[in-house]
Amino acid sequence: MDELYILRLVEEKKYIQIKKILEEMNEVDIAEVMDELDLHNTLLIFRMLPKDLAVDVFAHFSVEQQRDIVNAITDKELEFILDELFFDDMIDLIEEMPANLVNKVLKDSTVEERKLINQFLKYPPDSAGSLMTIEYVELRKKMTVKEAMLHIKEIGLTKETVYTTYVTDMNRKLEGFISLRLLVVSPEDAIIEDLMEDDVIFVTTHDDQETVANVFIKYGFLALPVVDTEGRLTGIITVDDIMDVMEQEATEDFQRMAAIVPSEDPYMTTSVLNLAKQRIVWLLVLMIAATTSAYIIESYASVLSSVVILASFMPMLMNTGGSSGSQASTLIIRGLATGEIEMTDGFKILWKEFRVSLIVGITLSIVNFARLMLISHAGFAVSLTVSLTLIVTVAIAKMLGSMAPLLAKKLKLDPAIMAGPLITTFVDAITLTVYFSIATVLLNL
Amino acid sequence: MDELYILRLVEEKKYIQIKKILEEMNEVDIAEVMDELDLHNTLLIFRMLPKDLAVDVFAHFSVEQQRDIVNAITDKELEFILDELFFDDMIDLIEEMPANLVNKVLKDSTVEERKLINQFLKYPPDSAGSLMTIEYVELRKKMTVKEAMLHIKEIGLTKETVYTTYVTDMNRKLEGFISLRLLVVSPEDAIIEDLMEDDVIFVTTHDDQETVANVFIKYGFLALPVVDTEGRLTGIITVDDIMDVMEQEATEDFQRMAAIVPSEDPYMTTSVLNLAKQRIVWLLVLMIAATTSAYIIESYASVLSSVVILASFMPMLMNTGGSSGSQASTLIIRGLATGEIEMTDGFKILWKEFRVSLIVGITLSIVNFARLMLISHAGFAVSLTVSLTLIVTVAIAKMLGSMAPLLAKKLKLDPAIMAGPLITTFVDAITLTVYFSIATVLLNL
Repeated sequence: MDELYILRLVEEKKYIQIKKILEEMNEVDIAEVMDELDLHNTLLIFRMLPKDLAVDVFAHFSVEQQRDIVNAITDKELEFILDELFFDDMIDLIEEMPANLVNKVLKDSTVEERKLINQFLKYPPDSAGSLMTIEYVELRKKMTVKEAMLHIKEIGLTKETVYTTYVTDMNRKLEGFISLRLLVVSPEDAIIEDLMEDDVIFVTTHDDQETVANVFIKYGFLALPVVDTEGRLTGIITVDDIMDVMEQEATEDFQRMAAIVPSEDPYMTTSVLNLAKQRIVWLLVLMIAATTSAYIIESYASVLSSVVILASFMPMLMNTGGSSGSQASTLIIRGLATGEIEMTDGFKILWKEFRVSLIVGITLSIVNFARLMLISHAGFAVSLTVSLTLIVTVAIAKMLGSMAPLLAKKLKLDPAIMAGPLITTFVDAITLTVYFSIATVLLNL
Repeated sequence: MDELYILRLVEEKKYIQIKKILEEMNEVDIAEVMDELDLHNTLLIFRMLPKDLAVDVFAHFSVEQQRDIVNAITDKELEFILDELFFDDMIDLIEEMPANLVNKVLKDSTVEERKLINQFLKYPPDSAGSLMTIEYVELRKKMTVKEAMLHIKEIGLTKETVYTTYVTDMNRKLEGFISLRLLVVSPEDAIIEDLMEDDVIFVTTHDDQETVANVFIKYGFLALPVVDTEGRLTGIITVDDIMDVMEQEATEDFQRMAAIVPSEDPYMTTSVLNLAKQRIVWLLVLMIAATTSAYIIESYASVLSSVVILASFMPMLMNTGGSSGSQASTLIIRGLATGEIEMTDGFKILWKEFRVSLIVGITLSIVNFARLMLISHAGFAVSLTVSLTLIVTVAIAKMLGSMAPLLAKKLKLDPAIMAGPLITTFVDAITLTVYFSIATVLLNL
């Protein structure tokens, strides 16, 4: 349905028509349209929606809009929303609300509920615990398929997913899982224990969300159980939430690798000032770091002033070094993120990059030497200086570029910060030193 | 189960024990372990597995292993695998096989089947058509819930998913969809037509896989119907396949942005020669492109030789320009990939980047001016030259960096190629020109 058309209907106050259109739409699209409205109209239309749909739409609102609505609606309306919201969405809501609204949200919760909420609020931000929800279907192994199906029929609508159900014992210890598909195709009198898969793949509450995402990708699961340190089932993570994590983790890595302080806010709605702030920090760091290169050049000022043409190859050498380093670091950073590369692969990688860098460096160097001699007529000594520097630079850049992300990970930093810009700054200094040292020898300076 | 432990059992030929262990494992893990074995042992163990599990494991083998197995097994064994494989996995298999094996695969197929296979092979590689499979559950709107459930019970195990089922008319025209969850919780005599969602969100066979992935992320679906130009249901795409697409698309973008020719092969198993090939092309292009910078510096050789210290600030200016450009281009490339930024946003982005660049440029410039005056004692004129260049460079880099990906997209190129390395090369040339022009004026050269 056309967004502009609905917004015009709102202006014309054709509410009956709006209601009819919205009821046919997906909750994600409704939330998207309503994000364009002012609070008055949002509330008006929000209250017009069938209650269950209203809750689904609420879960997809922006943080700001959720805040405004929580602030504006009555306690009774809020109670209904909180009752119907999935637990993970409620936790997200509480985390984003200012203190006075948190009080409004928690007012009617029981001691038990508050305890659980507090437990969930304590999980580290990017952990499995912070992603999971408690609305899963629990079965017992002695149940028959018929009993299980009746149970699902009864509670199915209140669960985040019914397609994977979990078999637990009296102490909530995870014993197995079974898919709804298998339940549906199995005879009614079969026993869950005989059907269930007892080799359960699970994650623990403190696992990092990137690890969790890699498990989902590897096995193609729709949901994954989360257990605590004693092996008790404490929640599940569903694939839709993991897709968001994957997108967000990739975006963060892209930002870090481009020397931007990561932010979850979309580009188009981020203010100019905030965009500037995200970018200035690293640029300042890199600018200061480039001082090293300046000192190196200054200390070779006499070399430069006798052969000024040497300056003209500096950009090419520095860029080739920087790009060579970026290539290696990017592949390693990505490999670490997808779980393909492990910390123990360090030596294999170094040896691999050394050989790659020789092939790349020598090839570039030959092309460059021919070009300088035949087209630029730079003379033998200068051409050789530039070409030899190229080989050394590519080799150092690739080895440094591949090792830096592993080092960062070892130091519990995000490997993605060791990307292009930072590597380039290091490589620059090395390139210049190599360049002028070789020049001093070959050009007898 | 420990991989090394199983491999040792294989060496010790303890096949009964191996069989017992494997039967308990997830098919993905079995395939992973078997990828370590030689063909003899692979075949031996492959034939030991229960037939259905064997097919699931086969679908997860590497291309090389699939090829070897297809080559080695009997026609009868192959027929069983082909019958049980999901259609999308079969198409992938055919696409990867050499011609002689394709003939072996297609030998027993009917004319009808071949026609369908050919149709699927013709979809563009990154399109929805090439991702979809034909094993979906089709319902009719006049069915009761009971009839629908019986239908699913009968055919459920042969379908890629049963959790979303599709309602079509006699001409396979898509009329609606309904989730298995809703079927399970609804009364048996309810009619599908009254329950189904008739506002169906779908993709078409020629939609790009990145577009499809963004629909999945936005709505959190488990499956999405694919229709042809006449609105007829031709297949479905499931979320597990889309997670692979998301990871692969992000990896490709990371590679392109680091001036690497994209490849789906994992780093650790790619040969040194292939890694070198992926990297040389762009480095050569960038090296040649840097000739421009060399010419610019040469043409200002007299300026440089009179104030050699100017050379020492070149790395800092070029890196800051390059990083500033990367920051902008990365955000735009990522925004285009996730669908957050659209081609029509061009002017808004340019205006935004202009303002961001002023804040960033002026801030950097002030810090830099103070540093050069107070710490480096570079003198007023040189400090001013460097600082003014910084402002202009950052502004040009950010505007160029943000527009280049949009331009690439307009030219039907991948926006990701307009990342750091390429932008840096352009920005270098501009930076140097600005730098020496300002120097000529301010230093009276």
